[in-house]
Amino acid sequence: MAGDLDNLRVVLVATRNPLNIGAAARAMSNFGVRRLRVVNPYEKAFREARSAVGAAGLLAKAEQYDGVAEAVADCRLVVGTTAVGPRDLQHRLQGLVEGARQIRRQLTSAPVALLFGSERYGLSNEELSHCHWLMRIPTREEHRSMNLGQAVAVCLYELVRGRKRAPAKSESGKKEKTAATSRELERLTQAMLKVLHDSGYVKPRAVAAEEKLRRLVRRMELNGNDAEVWLGMLRQIAWKVGANEKD
Amino acid sequence: MAGDLDNLRVVLVATRNPLNIGAAARAMSNFGVRRLRVVNPYEKAFREARSAVGAAGLLAKAEQYDGVAEAVADCRLVVGTTAVGPRDLQHRLQGLVEGARQIRRQLTSAPVALLFGSERYGLSNEELSHCHWLMRIPTREEHRSMNLGQAVAVCLYELVRGRKRAPAKSESGKKEKTAATSRELERLTQAMLKVLHDSGYVKPRAVAAEEKLRRLVRRMELNGNDAEVWLGMLRQIAWKVGANEKD
Repeated sequence: MAGDLDNLRVVLVATRNPLNIGAAARAMSNFGVRRLRVVNPYEKAFREARSAVGAAGLLAKAEQYDGVAEAVADCRLVVGTTAVGPRDLQHRLQGLVEGARQIRRQLTSAPVALLFGSERYGLSNEELSHCHWLMRIPTREEHRSMNLGQAVAVCLYELVRGRKRAPAKSESGKKEKTAATSRELERLTQAMLKVLHDSGYVKPRAVAAEEKLRRLVRRMELNGNDAEVWLGMLRQIAWKVGANEKD
Repeated sequence: MAGDLDNLRVVLVATRNPLNIGAAARAMSNFGVRRLRVVNPYEKAFREARSAVGAAGLLAKAEQYDGVAEAVADCRLVVGTTAVGPRDLQHRLQGLVEGARQIRRQLTSAPVALLFGSERYGLSNEELSHCHWLMRIPTREEHRSMNLGQAVAVCLYELVRGRKRAPAKSESGKKEKTAATSRELERLTQAMLKVLHDSGYVKPRAVAAEEKLRRLVRRMELNGNDAEVWLGMLRQIAWKVGANEKD
């Protein structure tokens, strides 16, 4: 399972307080998770966060990205964490126990990203649109929002806690079942978006439409082969629609 | 179970950093635990710890004691937390899952104290001697010691996680999750097929291609809403592609 945890990327998005990055790194070290990615941390000097007793090496190796898309490009499952209740969400929401179970299953074969938003605002709609589904820690209705470092600790604990069982075999075992990477899904999203623009279904620069489409594509839970097939089809359609444009 | 949690006392012993008291209070508030007791906090001004977003009331009501004996006097079970391995301990050591189970059982009828030691030294032998048994969070051998606020969060999460609940409702529940009917999927398949014909991706009457597409669409595992959205998009694209045909 050590190998499995190597497939996990903890992605901190727009974190404001370097102490929280340090605390997240420490919890990662406690539970044997090594890959930290930060997207637009509020303080560029995040590497100086030194509350991470014993996790300095992990922090030094943290990778920095300008956007969520880049930070999750190589991942086949992207899970966002949220304090928000199901009524306000566009995504499927899982409890932590069931969510962690699904993440563990995916970790046996492919990279998984677990996203944590900024202390003040959580994950934005754009950031959430890169996620396949969301996960919530079962906090009280009246005080849902957890401290970032504590939320990371609880999620990683739950992931590690359930490890004991022998790693579940992938359902069919074949390559075909390997989920598409976020890079592939984003390529598909953009190809689809172009066709929809060109055929007048959405207006150019319609941000909400793009996020909606991104979520829609993630919900398909495509495997790598299928993503390729869809992309091929879309390109052909785009060519045809484009040909019409030029008339 | 809210009543049961009222029997739990979180006891912070000789805490050095007021921020950690605040973080512990926040986690308590998140998980519905209200009784905080502090023993000889390093900074007397612990009530000023204000990192405890939303937990000010809880902090204001925290009780201060000069020793562990007084702080746990009314409790029928006293459990210490430790990062130390079993070989160095005089006490029975439980894993967190089993320990939490025993604590929950006791909470139904009597007060229970859960002790956390100082950031630097943990619980001293004297302090440990007040405990019935000890509990350990399953951290890595090489980096056992957790941040105090994170350790409190993980322990309380495990206590709350195992509570018996009213029969679980599906978390996102609702119509959105209802899988699309085969009728809807077939409509989608045919619309897609038409677009692919019209744009030259597949030949008319290509039976194998149609079957492949049908399987592809089923693998999307769409819900009813999403199937409708896809169908709407495809119709618009079909219209555009068709318009080209007529040129």
